[in-house]
Amino acid sequence: MRSKSWITSAAVFVIIVIIASAAGRCAPSTPKGRKAGGVSDIAVAAQKTYVAPGDLDEYYMFASGGHSGQVYVYGVPSMRHLSTIPVFAPYSATGYGYDDESKAMLGGLTWGDVHHPSLSETGGDYDGRWLFVNDINGRVARIDLRDFKTKQILGPIPNISGNHAGAFITPNSEYSFMASRFSAPVPRTNAVSIDQYASQYKGIIAAIAIDPKTGQMSPGFQILTPPFDWDLSDAGKLVSDGWAFFSCYNSERGTGKLEVTASQRDRDYIAAINWKEAAKAAAAGQGDMIGGVRVLDPKKVPGIMFLMPCGKSPHGVDVSPDGKYIVGSGKLQGVTTVFNFEKMITAIRNKNFTGQEDGIPVLKYEAIKDAEVAVGLGPLHTQFGPDGYAYTSLFVDSAIAKWKLGTWEVVDKVPMSYSIGHLAAAEGDTVSPDGKWLVGLNKLSHGRHLSVGPSQPESSQLVDISDEKMKLVYDAFTEPEPHYAQIIKADKIHTIEVYPKEENHHPLAVWDVKDAGVTRNGTNVTAKVVLVRSTITPSVIEVNQGDLVNVALTNIEQSTDELHGFGLIDYNINIVVDPGETKTVTFRADKPGVFAYYCTNFCSALHQEMQGYLIVKPRG
Amino acid sequence: MRSKSWITSAAVFVIIVIIASAAGRCAPSTPKGRKAGGVSDIAVAAQKTYVAPGDLDEYYMFASGGHSGQVYVYGVPSMRHLSTIPVFAPYSATGYGYDDESKAMLGGLTWGDVHHPSLSETGGDYDGRWLFVNDINGRVARIDLRDFKTKQILGPIPNISGNHAGAFITPNSEYSFMASRFSAPVPRTNAVSIDQYASQYKGIIAAIAIDPKTGQMSPGFQILTPPFDWDLSDAGKLVSDGWAFFSCYNSERGTGKLEVTASQRDRDYIAAINWKEAAKAAAAGQGDMIGGVRVLDPKKVPGIMFLMPCGKSPHGVDVSPDGKYIVGSGKLQGVTTVFNFEKMITAIRNKNFTGQEDGIPVLKYEAIKDAEVAVGLGPLHTQFGPDGYAYTSLFVDSAIAKWKLGTWEVVDKVPMSYSIGHLAAAEGDTVSPDGKWLVGLNKLSHGRHLSVGPSQPESSQLVDISDEKMKLVYDAFTEPEPHYAQIIKADKIHTIEVYPKEENHHPLAVWDVKDAGVTRNGTNVTAKVVLVRSTITPSVIEVNQGDLVNVALTNIEQSTDELHGFGLIDYNINIVVDPGETKTVTFRADKPGVFAYYCTNFCSALHQEMQGYLIVKPRG
Repeated sequence: MRSKSWITSAAVFVIIVIIASAAGRCAPSTPKGRKAGGVSDIAVAAQKTYVAPGDLDEYYMFASGGHSGQVYVYGVPSMRHLSTIPVFAPYSATGYGYDDESKAMLGGLTWGDVHHPSLSETGGDYDGRWLFVNDINGRVARIDLRDFKTKQILGPIPNISGNHAGAFITPNSEYSFMASRFSAPVPRTNAVSIDQYASQYKGIIAAIAIDPKTGQMSPGFQILTPPFDWDLSDAGKLVSDGWAFFSCYNSERGTGKLEVTASQRDRDYIAAINWKEAAKAAAAGQGDMIGGVRVLDPKKVPGIMFLMPCGKSPHGVDVSPDGKYIVGSGKLQGVTTVFNFEKMITAIRNKNFTGQEDGIPVLKYEAIKDAEVAVGLGPLHTQFGPDGYAYTSLFVDSAIAKWKLGTWEVVDKVPMSYSIGHLAAAEGDTVSPDGKWLVGLNKLSHGRHLSVGPSQPESSQLVDISDEKMKLVYDAFTEPEPHYAQIIKADKIHTIEVYPKEENHHPLAVWDVKDAGVTRNGTNVTAKVVLVRSTITPSVIEVNQGDLVNVALTNIEQSTDELHGFGLIDYNINIVVDPGETKTVTFRADKPGVFAYYCTNFCSALHQEMQGYLIVKPRG
Repeated sequence: MRSKSWITSAAVFVIIVIIASAAGRCAPSTPKGRKAGGVSDIAVAAQKTYVAPGDLDEYYMFASGGHSGQVYVYGVPSMRHLSTIPVFAPYSATGYGYDDESKAMLGGLTWGDVHHPSLSETGGDYDGRWLFVNDINGRVARIDLRDFKTKQILGPIPNISGNHAGAFITPNSEYSFMASRFSAPVPRTNAVSIDQYASQYKGIIAAIAIDPKTGQMSPGFQILTPPFDWDLSDAGKLVSDGWAFFSCYNSERGTGKLEVTASQRDRDYIAAINWKEAAKAAAAGQGDMIGGVRVLDPKKVPGIMFLMPCGKSPHGVDVSPDGKYIVGSGKLQGVTTVFNFEKMITAIRNKNFTGQEDGIPVLKYEAIKDAEVAVGLGPLHTQFGPDGYAYTSLFVDSAIAKWKLGTWEVVDKVPMSYSIGHLAAAEGDTVSPDGKWLVGLNKLSHGRHLSVGPSQPESSQLVDISDEKMKLVYDAFTEPEPHYAQIIKADKIHTIEVYPKEENHHPLAVWDVKDAGVTRNGTNVTAKVVLVRSTITPSVIEVNQGDLVNVALTNIEQSTDELHGFGLIDYNINIVVDPGETKTVTFRADKPGVFAYYCTNFCSALHQEMQGYLIVKPRG
């Protein structure tokens, strides 16, 4: 298979990459002309994106924060940053990772790499209940959209190595997916030499089970695969419900300099997983328990996994709103391939295979594709409108192409500044997309903003897609790094801003300053503290050096925006308590002296007076 | 002194606070009308704040991040967030606090509380070189505006307890100030009972010395004060150069429920410090060394400290651009007091004192004030325009008042949503403010944005002050918590976006993939790693379980925006290396198995292929 022509092909591939990168770099750095940025009517564009003081945005956009480990919330169309939801990294602004409860949830890891936010769905439509996000360290988190807080972090999940292809979920939120981007020995503790990569390293595709009532996640089941680099995923919907699709690169099983070794073949794969069948097989006890999780080998459980040939090193794989089409592309091709789900089913039924990989059938490309759409160079990801239009991001062309499902006609293009990766359309992953707004999540922003030194912001460009022609209306600069985002109608989300007192069952909660105080059991000290405008009660906590101090903080406010904090200076303690919440922090009083504590969150005109002292009496 | 009438005064004070808070709370939560938000001409306002794609903002705004520990950079007038500069808390988005170098700088503390950014000045004008910011944990940091990176964290400084009144600097950046908000025993390790607060707890005002060439900070000298709560500060300029002013509350020396005990008197103080005289006294060896820092007692060094009576519990103290006036207010008064610097000097010369506090003379209020300007209820902070106008934030009225220096006439008011704290004008702390833009940094935002649950964003409102009447043009929502901000002309800042190779003198830097590799000395392993599109060299690092591994990463790119990262999954390692930089990370290889590392920062079309493996061979 590895003939000279493949090597030539790889060399051309690398040359294209270099040219593409250089092109991005030579873009005009500070276009000053009022039309240079690509906006033809400034006044119209200004009003389109402007949300006047007191008015509200129409959509929420939830953007992944990459290796910030967080999720960022924006309003659309203003593109204003509204909130940071801390997930996988401590965030002292809200005390996340500093109180006992959230610290335990982080489990000793202080960063994550979040790529793909996934809103919970009912019947293939965003239902506004939860947001799931992946971390490359084999984890997935659930954010409750009632209070925009991280409620569960599951993992690191055994056997997974580099969970990139998450947290894509199924149309009724039955499962969230994971997959190994960096195949590794299974179990992970086997220190197998890299020389045995092709045969002894394994990929894993995991289905994380979600409780439909509570959102609680559990490890579900896994599928053992060849050592490909699993990249992205999307669940089937409507006609294709029950299936999920995963793109991969490095089907060459290369090691070393992957930019060459993983670019030898002209084609990689999109895997089609029959997750409903796999779930049945797992429930029936098939497969093996590895690291405490049931792992199915598709060679031994036929019918659960098939490989669809796709252009070299595809990135995205995207299912159309009606579930009929699966769109994927080699990431340096000039076309994107539209696979037809019904044709795929027929090919499977007819065993229309061209080969296999470790016992997994490879489907015949010509039998399952409907079209190769000439979208332009470097197609990565596709989103959809309400009217049969698709929008594909073009990394190399640095543009978005608009094209029609069925006719396969490319009808419009808009340039992006620069080098677009993902893109997100309003309600774009549902069975009924809204159209209206499309956000290009660009990889490079240089020269489009005031310089901030070597570490540059990401560029997210807002495109109006309500008319036939796409119109760029705004350059926003976003926290690193919005790999992917989802945009949901504002009225689908129903928040609370105060935790009702009757929901607080914390054993150390106190609701009256009379019940606040300090108790001692040997060298264990418990301080029940009440926070309410504008006093921290008690105002003095006396302990002995060496005591283990457990401070339980209850914010007894029942008013919106009335947060209180507890900052203990020089003791690295920084807790924030929302109205109606109780949180605890436990520490060893190892330094003698007097240490002030104070409310860190502005709360009233007398906020500044809300303070007290920890007095640590020295030993002996 | 503590007669019944004072107690009544305190009760009224608390009642006003409660009413003020309630008023904020009852504000209309979702004004839908297009004029409800306070904007009279939507189209004009939209265009005023709109920065078209490709165009650049006119100003940088550097906003403090409160207990996020960071500094946020915005563009004005678009109010777009451009960058987060990590300072006192780890920030995995840029790997800050994860590599050996920045981790050492943080010194074991993982949060800070940043209140007042202070741009370096030459001749009282922002010079665009550095930004200094305070942390309440007795620290101050210097950010270099060449690369927007934190270069030094000084502290915790001995004797200081709760550094709120920083990092205000002098007109030629000679000193940055600190002061104890929470007076405490000096030295800090003395665990003195709270009963002895009035006599045995002490305030400290510290002057941190700055090297004018390098910006390098050192502890300077300190002044011992009564146990007041020092709040804010500002340096004199032009005629008042050589002086600095500090506001305080709790001159009552109260303890317990400060909202009552610190509100007994009708007046607190603004301290006037002759820092040039104090510096001379310190240089001459006066005072005592406490905790390694020279501390001056003003009782023993007369002439360095005087107290100006001010309305109860003042917050801000602000010096006018010409240095002639010092503006401060009781925070629940209806007026703000303008003190006259020349009158102050005369009163000092004439010993026009009404008393003393621990030997520090109290100046006669009537002898030093020029006016009580009826700005409205709850004046907190004042900024200035180029034309003799002053802008005072009114917390209780939730508005900004515009008034004229000299005539003391209040000429305009604009409502803020809601409960404004600080405010920042373009070049507003210099000897020559620009006018044009004013940003209200509000404490409450409820109902002005899509709901994000209990933890709400801060509201920063943009006001056009280029005409006679102030015009609200935009509601921005900012990261928590912009206590204060400074706005500087964009063309004053000159950045680099790539570190020149010739400036990299790191001993472990390698600039050619041929020089990359792994060496071993006993159980110490050093890996010299080269990062360049699109390979991490070496692609495999093999070590033994228990080895101490030192990874030195050099990004040999010399192109803008070509950052590379090094994420090592399941090992909690996440480093980002800017073009031309070398960084190291040291860890114990305590877990056996195979662990992928990968580039975390998008860099090219083959970014996804930029990966390798750490193989940790098990013991025995």
